[in-house]
Amino acid sequence: MRSYDLIPIIKNALLAMFEHFETYLQANADFTKEELKQICAAATARKLRRRQFILQEGEICRFKIFVSSGLLKTARIKEDGTEYIMRFTAENTWTTDRESLENQTPSKLNIEALEDTELVLFTRAAAHELWQTIPTFRALSDKLIVNHLDASQERIFMNISYTSEEKYHSFITTYPDLFNRVPLHMVASYLGVSRETLSRIRHAQLKQ
Amino acid sequence: MRSYDLIPIIKNALLAMFEHFETYLQANADFTKEELKQICAAATARKLRRRQFILQEGEICRFKIFVSSGLLKTARIKEDGTEYIMRFTAENTWTTDRESLENQTPSKLNIEALEDTELVLFTRAAAHELWQTIPTFRALSDKLIVNHLDASQERIFMNISYTSEEKYHSFITTYPDLFNRVPLHMVASYLGVSRETLSRIRHAQLKQ
Repeated sequence: MRSYDLIPIIKNALLAMFEHFETYLQANADFTKEELKQICAAATARKLRRRQFILQEGEICRFKIFVSSGLLKTARIKEDGTEYIMRFTAENTWTTDRESLENQTPSKLNIEALEDTELVLFTRAAAHELWQTIPTFRALSDKLIVNHLDASQERIFMNISYTSEEKYHSFITTYPDLFNRVPLHMVASYLGVSRETLSRIRHAQLKQ
Repeated sequence: MRSYDLIPIIKNALLAMFEHFETYLQANADFTKEELKQICAAATARKLRRRQFILQEGEICRFKIFVSSGLLKTARIKEDGTEYIMRFTAENTWTTDRESLENQTPSKLNIEALEDTELVLFTRAAAHELWQTIPTFRALSDKLIVNHLDASQERIFMNISYTSEEKYHSFITTYPDLFNRVPLHMVASYLGVSRETLSRIRHAQLKQ
């Protein structure tokens, strides 16, 4: 059942969010029309304003989250209070705290909107139900998990082997669009490079 | 079909490797006796001497690899020729190059024995066949993938947020046994910390 009551939202905008999500699903797997209808019926739509959270540390993560438009930041706070950015999630990509969602344990993560953002959400129960009834949806979820694993392995290699300059260069060539939407100190936090170092690298590059 | 011809190996030692693997399987999922027999029949056993490779960069990865005894190092070479260690795989754990194995693409990884090592191997075809016929084996594989993903996320957080001292401390407390089996320069490579820095940290710690 779609939930229309989370925040006031006009029906047309809501429909647009689901249409966008359906387009994504059709582009990424062979779903029947009936399956698409079933998947969307199991989801809820939600809008976040910039700086609103969909998950905060200590809560149990409630949703698998698809971003229809906008941008989310997933971050984790170190014991000393410093925030480190685990990932950015832009249009047509997914995020969640898998561990918290599946094991129903308190999350270590904060997921916050960096822009006004439109989401399509699946509860754990809804996702598991769809996996049972729609093998293609299960296969798509499995593909997302192994893609995330492969990307994580690449990022670990970058983390341990790249110089700060190489990390910066890799980020701006891999995510040119994101680089223009995110403040430099957040890029530094994502890369594990100090803000000062990244400013210096950027300044040197702009001078060239 | 078990392959007995890879290197000369006495039959008793081979049986011991499979017995060890069966014990692992029984401890980690509810397999029937028939399923255990079927899984082991689909595998091959292999021994590696220290410094032998089971996968080299440029090859297409052929196996899902279970370590019965011994220790493997999975490494990737940066363009400048420096080796970085992606993971260590000790007894009762698995490794492979998932991307290369599933997509049949050339691997970027080298997997090498750091000690005399005993392996149980599954080809891609054998693994896929088992996934189809034994749902519990599929569930175990899925569990290994999400465990690897969760561990990768933890490692990324460590990579971007920990000081060199914290990385060293985390390694020796998380893997005390491994720390005694692996030379310090390999620990440095795994952590993404320079050999000199790690020596200095260790020296300071030993002095305390």
